[in-house]
Amino acid sequence: MLKGILLNSENYQPGLSIDCVIFGFHDNQLKVLLIKTPYENKWSLPGGFVPLNQDIDTAAVTVLNERTGMQGIFLRQFATFGRVKRNDQHFGNAVLDYFKIPEEAGKWFTQRFVTIGYYALVDFLKAVPQKGNNQEIIEWIDHKEVPELILDHKEILDKALDTLRTELNLMPVGYNLLPEKFTIPELQKLYETILDKKLDRRNFLRKITNIGILNKLDEKKSNVAHKAPNLYTFDKEKYEEVLKNGLNQGW
Amino acid sequence: MLKGILLNSENYQPGLSIDCVIFGFHDNQLKVLLIKTPYENKWSLPGGFVPLNQDIDTAAVTVLNERTGMQGIFLRQFATFGRVKRNDQHFGNAVLDYFKIPEEAGKWFTQRFVTIGYYALVDFLKAVPQKGNNQEIIEWIDHKEVPELILDHKEILDKALDTLRTELNLMPVGYNLLPEKFTIPELQKLYETILDKKLDRRNFLRKITNIGILNKLDEKKSNVAHKAPNLYTFDKEKYEEVLKNGLNQGW
Repeated sequence: MLKGILLNSENYQPGLSIDCVIFGFHDNQLKVLLIKTPYENKWSLPGGFVPLNQDIDTAAVTVLNERTGMQGIFLRQFATFGRVKRNDQHFGNAVLDYFKIPEEAGKWFTQRFVTIGYYALVDFLKAVPQKGNNQEIIEWIDHKEVPELILDHKEILDKALDTLRTELNLMPVGYNLLPEKFTIPELQKLYETILDKKLDRRNFLRKITNIGILNKLDEKKSNVAHKAPNLYTFDKEKYEEVLKNGLNQGW
Repeated sequence: MLKGILLNSENYQPGLSIDCVIFGFHDNQLKVLLIKTPYENKWSLPGGFVPLNQDIDTAAVTVLNERTGMQGIFLRQFATFGRVKRNDQHFGNAVLDYFKIPEEAGKWFTQRFVTIGYYALVDFLKAVPQKGNNQEIIEWIDHKEVPELILDHKEILDKALDTLRTELNLMPVGYNLLPEKFTIPELQKLYETILDKKLDRRNFLRKITNIGILNKLDEKKSNVAHKAPNLYTFDKEKYEEVLKNGLNQGW
């Protein structure tokens, strides 16, 4: 990625980047896909630059495909970050040294980068995290145990989480984060994990049922000690309809 | 504005602009502040470029102050637009000719501009629309009668309106669009105008009262034929609280 940039800095939109907050749900944790490069002590969000011949949304899709191996991921732009000093000095040292970047090309990195934040929801079990190179580490990390991040990436992550919590009141999101078949307790746990609070079991059941997006299957969850809970799938058609029109008719 | 750019194109973030959708409410219309320049047949949203030494949010505040003469306006970033061809050829002709822009400076204009959209809610009676120069026209136009706009400005306006409608379910917005004292029918009319649908009078009264942000005054609206309705103000403290925590606790 970086090497591509170095060779072709004239082919990228100057001063613009993409950062992706990729959420997955596993072991009752809301996890975030994070990267550790060899030339920094801190972790970072997966991101990239915007080729001159690509729409910004396409550039975001590219980052996601490259980093998860998945197509057709739920992806939304949520905010753009552009404080004057957000990457001040950042690329000036370790990165440039590490890549032996010539001074001229280095100038490209020392300008302010305004970054467009996207968040994605993926099925944890289907995603296959992909390194950018052999020295890189890429890992799913519980959003409650995120290590120190570079630049304003913590702010970007927090804003993505805020947006996800708000959107939970506006539209259904479980489809993207759960396996195809799931139980109501699993769905409730997902909501509780995102919102970071306990929900009343009966209230949740009533509300989620009223939305009319669940199909109850003639199957029960196996490998469960006793009183195996029913399995459900989402009714894709109704799900899409609610996604489009919104959960809450409000006024 | 354009002349400033020409003299100082090195002082601006390359390929980045700001566009502002400024809403006001008057005569039961949701109006948008639009500009007509002498070198184009179409209208446009007020906007600007981002000085290298300014945060993007500050640049947006500057545009708003310059265009409305107001400080402390309700302003939110809502989306960033960056299709490859969004300003393709646009500045190549009329604008460059009009300003007799030398070819070298003209190149700055022919790159793709990614634009960050902000929307603002202002008290129509307090805003004083400001021209950028004598040949410009700036006007409040009913959002239902918006003339043809340049570039993707119609898409930006539509997205701002969508966002405003969604946010009406999440938080109170009347404070920014109404005069200090107002009646419940006026408030309801504002909501109906934004949502573009009739609301049941009693339901609206119940919901808006339950939020607990209204103060009933010992005053009635004057100049009304019969059965003068009560005047209200917003309880600023409670309003700010609801704005912060959200209207809808949802799950």
